Amino acid sequence: MKILVLTAHPDLKRSRINRAWFNALTEAEAVTARDLTAVGGPDMQFDTDAEQAMLLEHERIVFQFPFYWYSSPPVLKAWMDQVLSYGFAYGPGGDKLKGRELLITVSTGGPADSYHAGGYNNFTVDELLRPFQQTAHLTGMTYLRPFVAHGMALATEEQIDASVPEMLVHLTDPELDPKIKQARLLKALADDPSKAAAVS
Amino acid sequence: MKILVLTAHPDLKRSRINRAWFNALTEAEAVTARDLTAVGGPDMQFDTDAEQAMLLEHERIVFQFPFYWYSSPPVLKAWMDQVLSYGFAYGPGGDKLKGRELLITVSTGGPADSYHAGGYNNFTVDELLRPFQQTAHLTGMTYLRPFVAHGMALATEEQIDASVPEMLVHLTDPELDPKIKQARLLKALADDPSKAAAVS
Repeated sequence: MKILVLTAHPDLKRSRINRAWFNALTEAEAVTARDLTAVGGPDMQFDTDAEQAMLLEHERIVFQFPFYWYSSPPVLKAWMDQVLSYGFAYGPGGDKLKGRELLITVSTGGPADSYHAGGYNNFTVDELLRPFQQTAHLTGMTYLRPFVAHGMALATEEQIDASVPEMLVHLTDPELDPKIKQARLLKALADDPSKAAAVS
Repeated sequence: MKILVLTAHPDLKRSRINRAWFNALTEAEAVTARDLTAVGGPDMQFDTDAEQAMLLEHERIVFQFPFYWYSSPPVLKAWMDQVLSYGFAYGPGGDKLKGRELLITVSTGGPADSYHAGGYNNFTVDELLRPFQQTAHLTGMTYLRPFVAHGMALATEEQIDASVPEMLVHLTDPELDPKIKQARLLKALADDPSKAAAVS
């Protein structure tokens, strides 16, 4: 499985967590990691044909970014609006991403317990990522469980270092597709029908 | 009440609906309407001090944009990331937007019935706008009921023309704050206690 990581950070040199992730990803096997800010330049303009050709060479697409105002930095949205075009990603003939996987990888400044009803961020990260989830859905991609590292505003160097292998394991896990996990559970139930009530 | 409209469209001259709205807003009383793409230039760079000063002169802030991939064009996110800064919009001393109102005004290509569970867009516009809602919450702004015009991909000139006064009435309604509507209901109930069970 070939993985394309699109990293969206306005200044990766000054990042702590996203730079550490990006550097590890550039050295990982079967991973193409790209700094969108460097690719798009100051006016965030992308070569649509080249970007689309690159998407077609990979089975799993990863959007990696810090959570700024509960979404990605603008460069990723610029990329999406220019590259996920009519006739390619949606509309007549727009089935080129169908069957590929989309995986969001995000760092948040706030702690995990803030991303809950009753927490100061009110909503879960899953809820705040709905625009990306529905983008995957409309383009026929399988939306995978995101990788989220919380509390990065106050993270120590040790915590950042520890997040790197955890992130790599998640991003390269070949069995993140929910259908795979469900099939495994259903097979286990078939092997032991007395537990069949536990289907969900 | 002074209203600041920030219009986020990559090319307003080529827009149908958002240009019609923007043109009407530039002529409306007590409304400052700004084309963020023109203000920020090709590299989407904003004068943070000037933008913040302008925010302080208005009580209601409107983000107006077409729904691209279930969010705004990148120029609005560039503005948010640069202008809603630490010490201004959040963090110590960051209470400058507290008590103001945020109102999202959005056009969608797809019809209203697609923005539902079981519709092809799966989620409601309210759900997809959570990042903006939570931005309002974190900055202490009152999040108002959005103005949404659906089905604009196939809209006729007549439908676009008809949306303009509807949009203007919504954006300039001084009583959109949910506390005002709730207070009105509670007062009506106090006048007729027999109906007090209907509090929600």
